[in-house]
Amino acid sequence: MLRSLTPETVKTLSKNQLNVLCDELRATICETVLKCGGHLASNLGAVESTVALFYTFDFPNDKIVFDVGHQCYAYKILSGRGRQFSSLRQTGGLSGFPKRKESEYDCYDTGHAGTSVSAAIGIAKARDLKKESFEVVAYIGDGSFNNGLVYEALNSLKILNTRVLIVLNDNGMSISPTVGGMHEILSGMDKEKAENVRLLEQFGFTYMGVKNGNDLEEMLDAMDEAKNKLKTGSVLLHIVTKKGKGYEFSEEHPTNTHGVPPVGAIKEREYSEVFGETLCALAEENPKIAVVSAAMKESLGLEKFFSAYPERAFDVGICEENACVLCAAMATQGIKPYYAIYSTFLQRAFDEIIHDVGSMDLPVTFCIDRAGISGADGETHQGVFDLSYLSMVPNLTVIAPKDTEEFKKALRFSATYAHPLAIRYPRAGKIVFPDDGAELEVGKWEYHHNAGDAASVTVYAAGERNLVVAMKVLKNLQAKGKEFNVVNARFVKPLDMRLLRSDRSKHIVTIEDNVLLGGFGSMVNTAVMGLGKGQTVRNFAYKDEFIVQGSVGELQRKYGVNCAEIEEYIAELI
Amino acid sequence: MLRSLTPETVKTLSKNQLNVLCDELRATICETVLKCGGHLASNLGAVESTVALFYTFDFPNDKIVFDVGHQCYAYKILSGRGRQFSSLRQTGGLSGFPKRKESEYDCYDTGHAGTSVSAAIGIAKARDLKKESFEVVAYIGDGSFNNGLVYEALNSLKILNTRVLIVLNDNGMSISPTVGGMHEILSGMDKEKAENVRLLEQFGFTYMGVKNGNDLEEMLDAMDEAKNKLKTGSVLLHIVTKKGKGYEFSEEHPTNTHGVPPVGAIKEREYSEVFGETLCALAEENPKIAVVSAAMKESLGLEKFFSAYPERAFDVGICEENACVLCAAMATQGIKPYYAIYSTFLQRAFDEIIHDVGSMDLPVTFCIDRAGISGADGETHQGVFDLSYLSMVPNLTVIAPKDTEEFKKALRFSATYAHPLAIRYPRAGKIVFPDDGAELEVGKWEYHHNAGDAASVTVYAAGERNLVVAMKVLKNLQAKGKEFNVVNARFVKPLDMRLLRSDRSKHIVTIEDNVLLGGFGSMVNTAVMGLGKGQTVRNFAYKDEFIVQGSVGELQRKYGVNCAEIEEYIAELI
Repeated sequence: MLRSLTPETVKTLSKNQLNVLCDELRATICETVLKCGGHLASNLGAVESTVALFYTFDFPNDKIVFDVGHQCYAYKILSGRGRQFSSLRQTGGLSGFPKRKESEYDCYDTGHAGTSVSAAIGIAKARDLKKESFEVVAYIGDGSFNNGLVYEALNSLKILNTRVLIVLNDNGMSISPTVGGMHEILSGMDKEKAENVRLLEQFGFTYMGVKNGNDLEEMLDAMDEAKNKLKTGSVLLHIVTKKGKGYEFSEEHPTNTHGVPPVGAIKEREYSEVFGETLCALAEENPKIAVVSAAMKESLGLEKFFSAYPERAFDVGICEENACVLCAAMATQGIKPYYAIYSTFLQRAFDEIIHDVGSMDLPVTFCIDRAGISGADGETHQGVFDLSYLSMVPNLTVIAPKDTEEFKKALRFSATYAHPLAIRYPRAGKIVFPDDGAELEVGKWEYHHNAGDAASVTVYAAGERNLVVAMKVLKNLQAKGKEFNVVNARFVKPLDMRLLRSDRSKHIVTIEDNVLLGGFGSMVNTAVMGLGKGQTVRNFAYKDEFIVQGSVGELQRKYGVNCAEIEEYIAELI
Repeated sequence: MLRSLTPETVKTLSKNQLNVLCDELRATICETVLKCGGHLASNLGAVESTVALFYTFDFPNDKIVFDVGHQCYAYKILSGRGRQFSSLRQTGGLSGFPKRKESEYDCYDTGHAGTSVSAAIGIAKARDLKKESFEVVAYIGDGSFNNGLVYEALNSLKILNTRVLIVLNDNGMSISPTVGGMHEILSGMDKEKAENVRLLEQFGFTYMGVKNGNDLEEMLDAMDEAKNKLKTGSVLLHIVTKKGKGYEFSEEHPTNTHGVPPVGAIKEREYSEVFGETLCALAEENPKIAVVSAAMKESLGLEKFFSAYPERAFDVGICEENACVLCAAMATQGIKPYYAIYSTFLQRAFDEIIHDVGSMDLPVTFCIDRAGISGADGETHQGVFDLSYLSMVPNLTVIAPKDTEEFKKALRFSATYAHPLAIRYPRAGKIVFPDDGAELEVGKWEYHHNAGDAASVTVYAAGERNLVVAMKVLKNLQAKGKEFNVVNARFVKPLDMRLLRSDRSKHIVTIEDNVLLGGFGSMVNTAVMGLGKGQTVRNFAYKDEFIVQGSVGELQRKYGVNCAEIEEYIAELI
């Protein structure tokens, strides 16, 4: 059926045909995600409700905003992207998230949690202002519903005086199981929940519940009723679904199958594994160590820590700001908190990094996974801004370790460091470099390859990926009889001014896994300019653009961190 | 009584004496704030509850976190800082906000809204982990209670499994009147509010209400009861108070007396006035223009706009993230949104600037008031990071106008600009510079003083304050027969590469009202390095420190933007 399906034909199908359609959608999603990687369990659970939405509403005239976007696959297929679906998350292929530039059916890009209700309200208000008539839907999971931004949006519905439908897809999970007081208020429908109704009615919503959101008939009826109610006011349609529905392994392992790699993909999780193990070891020595995560403890490598030290391990749900302030507050009382998070999500706590951790100079350690280009998730998930937004914060020290072994050293360094500290690292470690055995000292770099005083070029590389690039270029040029220095600039802030001052090379090259603006190279430029030795600096860093989906290697080449180009540049200098 | 008061003696006072104490506190606060400036109305309303807290709890062993800090004056006086209170907000004097470095009675620094509940929970959890026994209080106004971070914190109470007391001081105001659904749920106590109890009990709180939080006896009784209940679980003590209580003018004008300047201070509000007027004029021409503010429409100069175009003006309360997403969403539908906010508070929406506005390249205009050093509010309120955190965002253009007239041009420029745009400006305009009459073109600077090709120095100044400094230095040096170029670098991003390329001076000087790291000077350094003309660059910008309270002029001198130093530097070059 999918092969001949158009967005228009969905509305002409019988209920039996719609049930078949659900089965086919589920099969297509499974097949594609196992091949391309992607978000499996969340998308499987959303099939019936998505079909009901598509059957009932009139997209793209009506608008839908998927929170985060982990539940938009069925919608993508239904909205005319079935044939391209096998290109999911591939270079040049369909995005795993809603993208305006991909289809007129996608009205708002998402990727981070909690934006959908605000976005729906904003779109609805724009409709009112323009005196147009269409309906607006926010589709949000119960994990995202914990996020403070959702609460701000609910709170503003009456202020903006408009109408939206929120579909709250309650599968009891974010990536990890959903936690917290709001979840208890809204979760499940097995007991009397009169207070839910009252709560939501005070925010301006009519509350509706569907006990089995994976039952297509129930969903079609409820969606029809919701659409009618929406004529006169906002509706919150609370549906209970099964994450991973229809794929037995996924139903039983919803966390492990939330996001899955392609079948046959090499498992590369060294940094998170090293993180979990090392932090456990440190915590055994130091009872003051605690860890806070925002709904991602498994993918951050923290499962063992949560098992071994449950009283010191806190998963606060998708509440990045709260996690940061909790860390700051615990640090004021002599606890040693570690805030583990992906680079792109830490952006949500930027103000708290400055206002709470930075300005009080508190010893909170940020362990920042998926730093640099993160690959197939695309624009909304690249961790390419952290060196910039962290380095500007007074009192904060930033480390980019050269490999997993140096990452362990960085964690040991953190254990006694009395100030804010950020350690940023990519998903996968590929190499372990030779090691001088010394522990880290704040702001101290090392010559990773010392070509001697006569060398006219020094390459400063921040972090493993960039040191790998530098060493590859070195090897190629050494084969041609050319030599240069390579420095492991593991402290991105503070810079090693002593080493920079003593650097006699005429030409400096910086390489980083971050945007140029405000990042490592920018800081080196300022430092070199201040030293006034007339050295040139060439920065290899990402251009001032949003970085699309693709493999790390491809994207590094495309956006400005290019082995061939670096080699060519250095070869000309020597 | 205040003169002989120590923190210990408060507990020994009779109820009559405590009432006298409240009167004296109120008089002292009025007198000091009228002299020094500060937050008047909010602090007047909080007197009785603060006295009750101090009488009932055992600070500093027990801990209290004041949300934002606009209600901490009575607490400062009671906790042994009465004699220094006349130095409030002065250079080297008492801070207007809680400061750990000021007193052991201040356990957590605040200044931005919504952090107190997270902070109290974090401190309480640290207490539990260390097996200590003290109580933790968060004191929060109903305006802050709208902030999403508070909701995230409430939501995490059960996860962290600890006990805190929240005093919710409900005066119906943030700076502007409080708005939104949550406010309706919790505001006042004049009708049956059983659902409040249920809601808060599901988050894990016992709810208590006090109808007149300015009645000392009621407050003392309630606080005693709250302390008892706190032994077994968390308590939310909801008190209704009168903002400005006891000072008739302030009771009647709580918004105008929220923050007040010292008596006799010169009124300097040119930028916000120009903003309001110009935006009204633009909105009259263009019905698509809308404005969003986060609880500060008056201080941003938007009162007229809100009166003239109520259907296009939205104050969403202290919800900076929601405000940003609403703007992005409206922009997707062809509305032209302006997000007006203070520089320091926009930090809260950093992720949404990247993830929503930036990545979708939406024509949202950020009008950023109080940019640069903002003065007496100190560390938490300086707007010195925005050039850095905005310039790193792809697709975003950043303007720092040279004066209020150029600000008008920038707003006119924004009206037809189809991409994200930020215009940042200080509180006060001091000067209007000569004008060539031309409208702005993206990325185009102007020679503000052209000393001709022979000039060996060019000064690039970004924004009014810096251009004033540059012109002052020029005047001084011209008197000594020395000349240099001065460029009005009004577009901080993109830089005017054509002008930079054509600049034949040997030495470049940058001046900005922002931190050096990631700011204007850093970008010029990178550009000049890339041009490879061997020019030197010296940056005058703020050092990598948090900037304390003081006057703008004092702080510019202290933190690195120093007329004398700039003059000396340039004089040596010429």
